[in-house]
Amino acid sequence: MTTTAQPEQQYRVIGTRPVRHDGVDKVTGAARYGADINLPGMLHARILRSPHSHARIRSIDTSKAEAVPGVVAVATAADFPIIENRMIDFAEVQGNARMIAENLLAKDKVLYVGHAVAAICATSPHIAMEAMKLVEVDYEVLPTMLTWREAMADDATLLHDDMTTYFRMERFARGDDTGVKSNVAGHIQHKVGDVDQGFAEADIVIEREFETQTVHQGYIEPHVSTAMWSADGRVTVWTSTQGIFNVRAQTAAIIGVPEGQVKIVPMEIGGGFGAKGITYTDPVAAVLSKKTGKPVKVAMDRTDVFIGSGPASATFMRCKMGVKNDGTMVAGQLYMVYEAGAYPGSPVGGGALTGFGPYKMDHMLVDGYDVVCNKQKVQAYRAPGQPQVAFAVEAVVDELAEILGRDPMELRIQNAVQEGDRMPNGVPHRVFGCRELEEAMINSDHNRTPLEGPNRGRGIAVGFRWQAGQASSATINVNSNGTLNLITGSVDIGGTRTAVAMQVAETLGIDVDQIAPTVVDTDTVGWTASTGGSRIAFDTGLAAIAAAEDLRDQMARCCALVWEVEPDQVEFADGVFTCTANEERMTIADAASRMMRTGGPLTASASATSTGVGPIFAGNIIDVEVDPETGKVDVLRCTAFIDSGTSVHPSYVEGQMQGGTMQGIGWALSEDYTYADDGRMLNSTFLDYRMPTALDMPMIDTVVIEVPNPRHPYGLRGVGEAPIIPPLAALHNAVYHATGVRVNKLPLSPTSVLEAIQEANGA
Amino acid sequence: MTTTAQPEQQYRVIGTRPVRHDGVDKVTGAARYGADINLPGMLHARILRSPHSHARIRSIDTSKAEAVPGVVAVATAADFPIIENRMIDFAEVQGNARMIAENLLAKDKVLYVGHAVAAICATSPHIAMEAMKLVEVDYEVLPTMLTWREAMADDATLLHDDMTTYFRMERFARGDDTGVKSNVAGHIQHKVGDVDQGFAEADIVIEREFETQTVHQGYIEPHVSTAMWSADGRVTVWTSTQGIFNVRAQTAAIIGVPEGQVKIVPMEIGGGFGAKGITYTDPVAAVLSKKTGKPVKVAMDRTDVFIGSGPASATFMRCKMGVKNDGTMVAGQLYMVYEAGAYPGSPVGGGALTGFGPYKMDHMLVDGYDVVCNKQKVQAYRAPGQPQVAFAVEAVVDELAEILGRDPMELRIQNAVQEGDRMPNGVPHRVFGCRELEEAMINSDHNRTPLEGPNRGRGIAVGFRWQAGQASSATINVNSNGTLNLITGSVDIGGTRTAVAMQVAETLGIDVDQIAPTVVDTDTVGWTASTGGSRIAFDTGLAAIAAAEDLRDQMARCCALVWEVEPDQVEFADGVFTCTANEERMTIADAASRMMRTGGPLTASASATSTGVGPIFAGNIIDVEVDPETGKVDVLRCTAFIDSGTSVHPSYVEGQMQGGTMQGIGWALSEDYTYADDGRMLNSTFLDYRMPTALDMPMIDTVVIEVPNPRHPYGLRGVGEAPIIPPLAALHNAVYHATGVRVNKLPLSPTSVLEAIQEANGA
Repeated sequence: MTTTAQPEQQYRVIGTRPVRHDGVDKVTGAARYGADINLPGMLHARILRSPHSHARIRSIDTSKAEAVPGVVAVATAADFPIIENRMIDFAEVQGNARMIAENLLAKDKVLYVGHAVAAICATSPHIAMEAMKLVEVDYEVLPTMLTWREAMADDATLLHDDMTTYFRMERFARGDDTGVKSNVAGHIQHKVGDVDQGFAEADIVIEREFETQTVHQGYIEPHVSTAMWSADGRVTVWTSTQGIFNVRAQTAAIIGVPEGQVKIVPMEIGGGFGAKGITYTDPVAAVLSKKTGKPVKVAMDRTDVFIGSGPASATFMRCKMGVKNDGTMVAGQLYMVYEAGAYPGSPVGGGALTGFGPYKMDHMLVDGYDVVCNKQKVQAYRAPGQPQVAFAVEAVVDELAEILGRDPMELRIQNAVQEGDRMPNGVPHRVFGCRELEEAMINSDHNRTPLEGPNRGRGIAVGFRWQAGQASSATINVNSNGTLNLITGSVDIGGTRTAVAMQVAETLGIDVDQIAPTVVDTDTVGWTASTGGSRIAFDTGLAAIAAAEDLRDQMARCCALVWEVEPDQVEFADGVFTCTANEERMTIADAASRMMRTGGPLTASASATSTGVGPIFAGNIIDVEVDPETGKVDVLRCTAFIDSGTSVHPSYVEGQMQGGTMQGIGWALSEDYTYADDGRMLNSTFLDYRMPTALDMPMIDTVVIEVPNPRHPYGLRGVGEAPIIPPLAALHNAVYHATGVRVNKLPLSPTSVLEAIQEANGA
Repeated sequence: MTTTAQPEQQYRVIGTRPVRHDGVDKVTGAARYGADINLPGMLHARILRSPHSHARIRSIDTSKAEAVPGVVAVATAADFPIIENRMIDFAEVQGNARMIAENLLAKDKVLYVGHAVAAICATSPHIAMEAMKLVEVDYEVLPTMLTWREAMADDATLLHDDMTTYFRMERFARGDDTGVKSNVAGHIQHKVGDVDQGFAEADIVIEREFETQTVHQGYIEPHVSTAMWSADGRVTVWTSTQGIFNVRAQTAAIIGVPEGQVKIVPMEIGGGFGAKGITYTDPVAAVLSKKTGKPVKVAMDRTDVFIGSGPASATFMRCKMGVKNDGTMVAGQLYMVYEAGAYPGSPVGGGALTGFGPYKMDHMLVDGYDVVCNKQKVQAYRAPGQPQVAFAVEAVVDELAEILGRDPMELRIQNAVQEGDRMPNGVPHRVFGCRELEEAMINSDHNRTPLEGPNRGRGIAVGFRWQAGQASSATINVNSNGTLNLITGSVDIGGTRTAVAMQVAETLGIDVDQIAPTVVDTDTVGWTASTGGSRIAFDTGLAAIAAAEDLRDQMARCCALVWEVEPDQVEFADGVFTCTANEERMTIADAASRMMRTGGPLTASASATSTGVGPIFAGNIIDVEVDPETGKVDVLRCTAFIDSGTSVHPSYVEGQMQGGTMQGIGWALSEDYTYADDGRMLNSTFLDYRMPTALDMPMIDTVVIEVPNPRHPYGLRGVGEAPIIPPLAALHNAVYHATGVRVNKLPLSPTSVLEAIQEANGA
């Protein structure tokens, strides 16, 4: 059962729970995913991967593989022309084409076990897989720098000979090249006040260390692309992606054609969670299609996904906090090391704002390090980099509350930030429901119901997420029966098609089933950033609202023509145009049916560039029971809280909360990449990589607080990511309260919990 | 060799001859047509057709067919709910859903041999074809009214028991129901002055009768549709059509769902020439998909196309003209009977303006009759109804010239209309190159080169086409490298994608290869009328120009932001924005690359509703040699003339001239439906239905006159249809001058020419 706190209803469509437009196709199997693409003459490619975690490639001999009947072509890094130093579309943070390309097909070095080396294209995937075994790669094996610890050691072997450390004071600012050659790709620092002075003023100061492991997003659908390089130089790619325009820009740069010549067609997506914002298989399929003149499909299997795509950063964090005896927090310091994997680009910048985000402190210092090592290049995973740091900070806050003898929620409320307080980077906080959500947590049925019984504990934690936004576009076309076709370039994750359509319906005062929302390819809609950053309902919503307002104005002019009045004598409210000069009324459907006699077809396109999806705030209360003989943690009860701003579609908000919490629980309790010393992943299947299932969990209850976001006309915030932030810490705290032992290293697997208990017991 | 008269070049892109965007895909076989659609689980349906030309259906028993293994479903007229009396989208002339539906699957009566009766859906088309033979239809055979002559006889059997004659004074006006039950569906009359008085004033009056036969458009690609009726009630149809929104409206009405629930996806089209503006197979595929839950493909074969689609009207015409001795035309009267086939709707209205269109006469009376008979329901064929009437009038003008002893071109020039002269319907003519084109004909190399030798003759004729326009929409999206994606709903016939893109390029001062034009489905672009009526380069061009101008204005505002000036200080010319306040300059590509920092993605949608594609004017000079022993007519030399207004892409204008002329020559010399007395078509293959091939023809030379159309910013007129108007008459006249015999009945086949020669010789 889920519970939702609903504010007084002020909207007609916003806040209702209509059936999602894509629902029937998805449950009946009619929805088409990347693997469903089959084109005449299509070929299949599979990717050969490195068995070494760190090696120089002396040579690749594909001749024996190419001699296998059915093998049509082979691709290696030499097939990527790569337009370097070209801005990848608009967002500089998307990364560098050369590094993306080298991760798709290794150039001079392999940097992790699973690094792609060559692609074999054949008439069937089975032939490609067999032929792959005949590719002879001559490797010069180099020392393995598997984790940040080896990579940061003084005698570390450098993964990238030329890489020097960049130092940045702001997340997206260009860095200053320190000139120091190192495996440390970047250092980001946020500073408020003077922490040394702060700690001197504090009555209690504690410092703790935390570690998290490499985990995977665990989306069900592996990466798959089918490309057709036409004889006229235009390239079409059908793919599973979160960002069609990003994939277009990356693919175009890597295959060396202008981006306008590439069309990315999005299929339905079977999960992404951030990791499908970057390209893996698209450029490979494209160059093989160019070589063969045929459409080429490149599909990963599950092991390919684990060892060849981008998991979340493993991290090391040292968190120091100082409080006065009255509970006032005065200083906080964070030292964060985030593994980037083989190429620079961990989400340490995202994490750096999250940890101390909920707390008002005069003195803060955050140092984050982005470190390359011989693992898979990490990618975004839902609230990238933020669950890890919240784990550290919220565990320390829990411990401080215990030392102070305070209720942990009360301590948080005492120190809750409000509008204008400074974030760790010194930027003032915007309005969000920090105190409101924490008060909802303390007043919740879950918190007020005592947890009884041995070996049981309750943990709480909160998670703050700073969020900007990006650009989206939308087009709306009007049918003569008054229904609308809504066109966006935002791949639908979690019901965004419907959430955006609901905002159009609200704006025009019609029912959402009068709107048919479609996600189209890159040729057919204005530029739109990826689906990610919890931004689609907000940003694409803004673009769609702008297009709807344009249509409304066009229709008002139609009404004025029909009524023979001036346009400013036409008013619009609740889906009805009325004339101030007479009694005339016209609905949206009326106006649509007359459009051919009042100026012609109605169509509108608009774009929006937002900066204010968030901030967003979430919390968890989790009860566990720990088996003292095995160390196994069972979740007894779990409640997720969020300040969603206005909930467009409460069911989808609740779904995001439940999904995010579930992923956070998996990350906390059971998931990690188990690496052999040589860098091989030992558990690259869903049998061995243990994600929680519905059988492992109670129903996750949800409580939604709605503090409207002033930057959106209907008050939305993004909700997709924040729910994954607090569970890691909440479970750590719960296990502590059940066992009396703080396990500062994830996952809280039976083995590690049992060892910690035994160690505490002197066993 | 083709020759083109080019006016002084005033445009950068308009008037050039770039490679068409769809060219490479079409010549390499990568372009996808309706037959290329293959979906998982797809079923195949074939259509059972009536063996009787006129019969009542007592019952249809499909049980034996349904028992055949592999047969999945059967559809009959009972499966069409039909939303009656609903306006089919916007254009009332599109016809009535009930009648369209009854032509797709006969309800109570079959009205021609080939009338569809049932559709059998099976796992393979072969099974469907075999099972079809087991359907038992109990027919009550009725008398055959094969041609207008039987249908108009006093004792004629009525095809439609309730049908009464409508009388109209204007082509598109609602008629007055005369209440007379008849096979005459409509009577249209145009009247200027008093013809009786006119003939009384004339010195010479002649009256002649003419006949033309049923001919087919002869497109290479048969009709084919694949439909998927999803479980949520949305219907998608991939189809070969000229008009996605018309097919959507017709299909939605026939299958009984709101039009917004139907998505029509246009495939590339292998010819249509007007006949693919209406639906045949789409609703059949849709209801079978609903029944089976699977995608269903319905394809015609060549015989299906001949006997089950819509050819052009057979006609009877009586033309009477009076001239003074000085050549002044004073009066013209036309009696026109056009066969509609099984259901009302011949193009007699289109023909009624064409015949006397080129001639200034004070007295005109045109009576046109739309007559149903037991033949295929006619459809539009390139300049619908106009070649037939031009055949009659231009033959009479040729004969008058001979009687007067005048050069036939000089006589035409003497009587040429100019702006303000009245059309037969009394409406003043607009500007077009009537005199200019006729002077180009008389001054042409062809006309000035004497034709020598026995049995040879030269024929000339002109063709006038009145043209309105309809609505189109366009969307343009900007890529960051300055290339544009141009989205329209105008199925590309004859290079319209490129012709529209060229107008955008001209407007924005960029090269046309910087624009990627795509034709999209009905969900994805604003309402757009069919590709037809020579209107796409003009109408969709206007919409695209409007969208381009919107983008230009948006970009100017971006420039103003960058330069920190007011928008009105930004000027645009030749693809460059300049600042009046300083020296700054920015190209379209520069502005595009900065869009993300100057307000966000650039996208624009616009629509246009035109009324002025035309008028349009064409002419032919054709030399023939007639074999006196066989009657076979060989074309020795042929020159086509047109007033295209400004030619956007001269190669496409020339292509339209050559294609239209070729079709006109086929119509004149060799093509007709050969019917048995019982209404069976005896020549329903391309072996027996004889269309001219390249081997039968000399190169068709082209002369393009450009009298700009003041209703378009670049002066375009439509060019697709007019070239087919004059060839019928030109060949008739040429054969007369070669043989001394006027053959007033088409086709001028060897048999009919030989018989006429022998009759004239008293043989």
